[in-house]
Amino acid sequence: MVKKTMAESTITPRSEDYNRWYLDVIREAELAENSPVRGCMVIRPYGYAIWEAIQSGLDRRFKETGHQNAYFPMFIPHSFIAKETEHIEGFSPELALVTKGGGKDLDEALVVRPTSETIIGHTFARWVRSYRDLPLLINQWANVVRWEMRTRPFLRTMEFLWQEGHTAHTTEKEAMEETLQMLGVYEEMARDDAAIPVIPGEKSEIERFAGAVNTYTIEAMMGNGWALQSGTSHYLGDKFARAFEIQYTDDNNKLQYAHTTSWGVSTRFVGAVIMAHGDDQGLRLPPKMAPIQVAIVPLWRKNKEEAEVMGLANQVFQTLKNAGIRVKMDDRTHLSPGFKFNDWEMRGVPLRIEIGPRDVKQNAVVVARRHLPGKEGKIFGVAVESLGTKIPELLQEVHDGLYNQALAFREENTHTGFEDLESFTQATQDKGGFLKVHWAGTSEDETKVKEDLKFTIRCYPNADQGGPAGRCFYTGKETNRVAIFARAY
Amino acid sequence: MVKKTMAESTITPRSEDYNRWYLDVIREAELAENSPVRGCMVIRPYGYAIWEAIQSGLDRRFKETGHQNAYFPMFIPHSFIAKETEHIEGFSPELALVTKGGGKDLDEALVVRPTSETIIGHTFARWVRSYRDLPLLINQWANVVRWEMRTRPFLRTMEFLWQEGHTAHTTEKEAMEETLQMLGVYEEMARDDAAIPVIPGEKSEIERFAGAVNTYTIEAMMGNGWALQSGTSHYLGDKFARAFEIQYTDDNNKLQYAHTTSWGVSTRFVGAVIMAHGDDQGLRLPPKMAPIQVAIVPLWRKNKEEAEVMGLANQVFQTLKNAGIRVKMDDRTHLSPGFKFNDWEMRGVPLRIEIGPRDVKQNAVVVARRHLPGKEGKIFGVAVESLGTKIPELLQEVHDGLYNQALAFREENTHTGFEDLESFTQATQDKGGFLKVHWAGTSEDETKVKEDLKFTIRCYPNADQGGPAGRCFYTGKETNRVAIFARAY
Repeated sequence: MVKKTMAESTITPRSEDYNRWYLDVIREAELAENSPVRGCMVIRPYGYAIWEAIQSGLDRRFKETGHQNAYFPMFIPHSFIAKETEHIEGFSPELALVTKGGGKDLDEALVVRPTSETIIGHTFARWVRSYRDLPLLINQWANVVRWEMRTRPFLRTMEFLWQEGHTAHTTEKEAMEETLQMLGVYEEMARDDAAIPVIPGEKSEIERFAGAVNTYTIEAMMGNGWALQSGTSHYLGDKFARAFEIQYTDDNNKLQYAHTTSWGVSTRFVGAVIMAHGDDQGLRLPPKMAPIQVAIVPLWRKNKEEAEVMGLANQVFQTLKNAGIRVKMDDRTHLSPGFKFNDWEMRGVPLRIEIGPRDVKQNAVVVARRHLPGKEGKIFGVAVESLGTKIPELLQEVHDGLYNQALAFREENTHTGFEDLESFTQATQDKGGFLKVHWAGTSEDETKVKEDLKFTIRCYPNADQGGPAGRCFYTGKETNRVAIFARAY
Repeated sequence: MVKKTMAESTITPRSEDYNRWYLDVIREAELAENSPVRGCMVIRPYGYAIWEAIQSGLDRRFKETGHQNAYFPMFIPHSFIAKETEHIEGFSPELALVTKGGGKDLDEALVVRPTSETIIGHTFARWVRSYRDLPLLINQWANVVRWEMRTRPFLRTMEFLWQEGHTAHTTEKEAMEETLQMLGVYEEMARDDAAIPVIPGEKSEIERFAGAVNTYTIEAMMGNGWALQSGTSHYLGDKFARAFEIQYTDDNNKLQYAHTTSWGVSTRFVGAVIMAHGDDQGLRLPPKMAPIQVAIVPLWRKNKEEAEVMGLANQVFQTLKNAGIRVKMDDRTHLSPGFKFNDWEMRGVPLRIEIGPRDVKQNAVVVARRHLPGKEGKIFGVAVESLGTKIPELLQEVHDGLYNQALAFREENTHTGFEDLESFTQATQDKGGFLKVHWAGTSEDETKVKEDLKFTIRCYPNADQGGPAGRCFYTGKETNRVAIFARAY
């Protein structure tokens, strides 16, 4: 049995209170903390390193698909935001305004960007003249501000970090292909880097981005069965092109409006990583995103054992470092081994290597895998000379294990077969999770379901459309549109 | 003789009007442009890629020296800024204030960070308890805002991008070592990545960061002999520690104030790259920072030549790409070779490869090096099979060439031997450049020199202190303190 220690006892078990567990993990693993500015958080180094992993995985994929980074002003004239009708309606209640600068009142208030379609639309109009200037494939890494009243670390903060892609194309077809391509990039990053299975699909009308024609999303299931919108990609039609006059002359010398897209993933995704994988012991980090992939805990009691144990531990450390693995030596002397084991488990480190006097004799180590609990996760007698190849394999095993566990959990908690409101209502109370149903309701119907049951349409999953018709649980109509309802953050 | 083309003629020669040349280069090479928000610029992809190179060179070095990235709120309560007396005095005239959020007037205005000593000081006070928590070595990549009245792209903009390092230490000695270590990191990045020789030294009292005990700088000479402060590192003593109560218990269990540092490099450094190396033809980019390191221009007149020329060009392209070189194929058909040559020169691409029908016969190419003008820069008959190793060597040659040219230019334009005001005044008019002198004046004297002659103390160069005494040109006093005076951006 694992010895009880301070590190363990300060985290509320996940099963007991999911929301407290989430906040406990963020505090104890030193991912983030509240700041003196209401709704803004400080992202601590361990949390920021996860964001850096998300960034590098996305940035590489953006560049591979032909996008370039650029930077646009954070301040946007208020008149710009107002140019696209739906956009200003959607964002108006959330704006932060700079009204004074350099000691003077400003003539026109500057909006701190909540998103950059308007300032970038204005700029694109200057850059685009002919069809030869298209497509324009731009991404920006930036901070944005939305005046949120109820905030939660990573999931919803007033200021957050994100990337926002903005592209312009000659045709609707090409712009739609781009929209879906970037949704695919997000899906791939979630699967291959974060070990999170996501459901790509389209948002319903009421969940659409303010000013979009179509909004697509990747939806992930968290450990409590709730959904988290983890990235979105918007087809904007020619709405912003008309508002900002992004026009090009086509090959017949005719003036045309461009078709634009935008797409974003934010620090919210760090929340997805925490909640998709964490367990009662704390974090479980996907190896590709883990700031520390392997923690080495040397174990010795008698002073004469120290030299030989530390000798092997240092050798292992160097081997792994040379293999490009992010490895940490835990040589803290004022903490017990039990405390250290729990500490690294709580921090979600994928692999822990234990080295004691007996291991030195065998020239082998014990490796504990974070995705399997207790004894089950331990491998004894792993030969030291095999570590350079064995550890990368085990990291991949942890990645796959986390992915498969998350997928199995989602499948267990996805329910179907609801053809009337009563059975659906019952499921929202008894089962939770994702309720996959046929849906022929209106936006008003959807709003009513939300008000009554707190379940919302997360998306119309791309993979489930176009199948056989079924009965809508709400309207009773036959339809082949499939929707996933869930509680959501 | 190089054929005159549009690309060349739109840039004002550097020798004719340096400031117009600078703006012309930024426009024509598509580095940046003005935005509709006064004082804020749009950083275009080609300019942003240079910033990304600066970022990656610094970020790697920060991590190698034990620093971790984190992120702190952009909004700072006004009361925080006011806590350190000199700090608020220095920054007060430059603040942008958010006074409305979510449709309501705020009780306390939020400052858009001009720098983050205060919010980070507040946070460090929470993180530091015992000497075991120190040193605390943090860096932040962020945007900051200073309400500037006279702006110039990259050099001085209202919003700019930067990194700001913030560290806390137990002793003054250790904090001072950190301050100088990071100055050294900046010097190394400038030299090894940007091919810019810089002079590390201390700022005079009136040029000190608001709230610092000592401010150190790296000063670079631009192509017109002016100085550009290209990075600064501050020893903050315990001033911010006292203002924000960053205290630790030492190993005698006594409460002590920490000693802190801060240091930053901003998008201003892109301006340094442009101005330190550029010539009449436009940009000359140091190879490690060049978004495009090699441009391939295929040359053919008759249609039957196209296939063989493009065949070899594509082969060369693939060879270089596989070697990890950032290579661009210029297969634009509507532009003349002369235009393309000038275009890539103007954009500062370090190497241009020309491939014509004669080259195909010899299985060789022509390579033009950007740091040497015209014919002098060309190497004929470079064997195709050697390119995988030859091109990296030539990129290093361009790097060294740019560095040596910049160093020689600085040495030519550094003048000494001024022991009275008259000869110094004469030199400010006739010679310009860096005037290296002995200086025993006060802050008032320095201000007077600035008002009268527009020359300011750029730094007391570290390398020149502690030598034999000499006569101060202003006070007539003997001193061994050496200062560099120059016009500065």
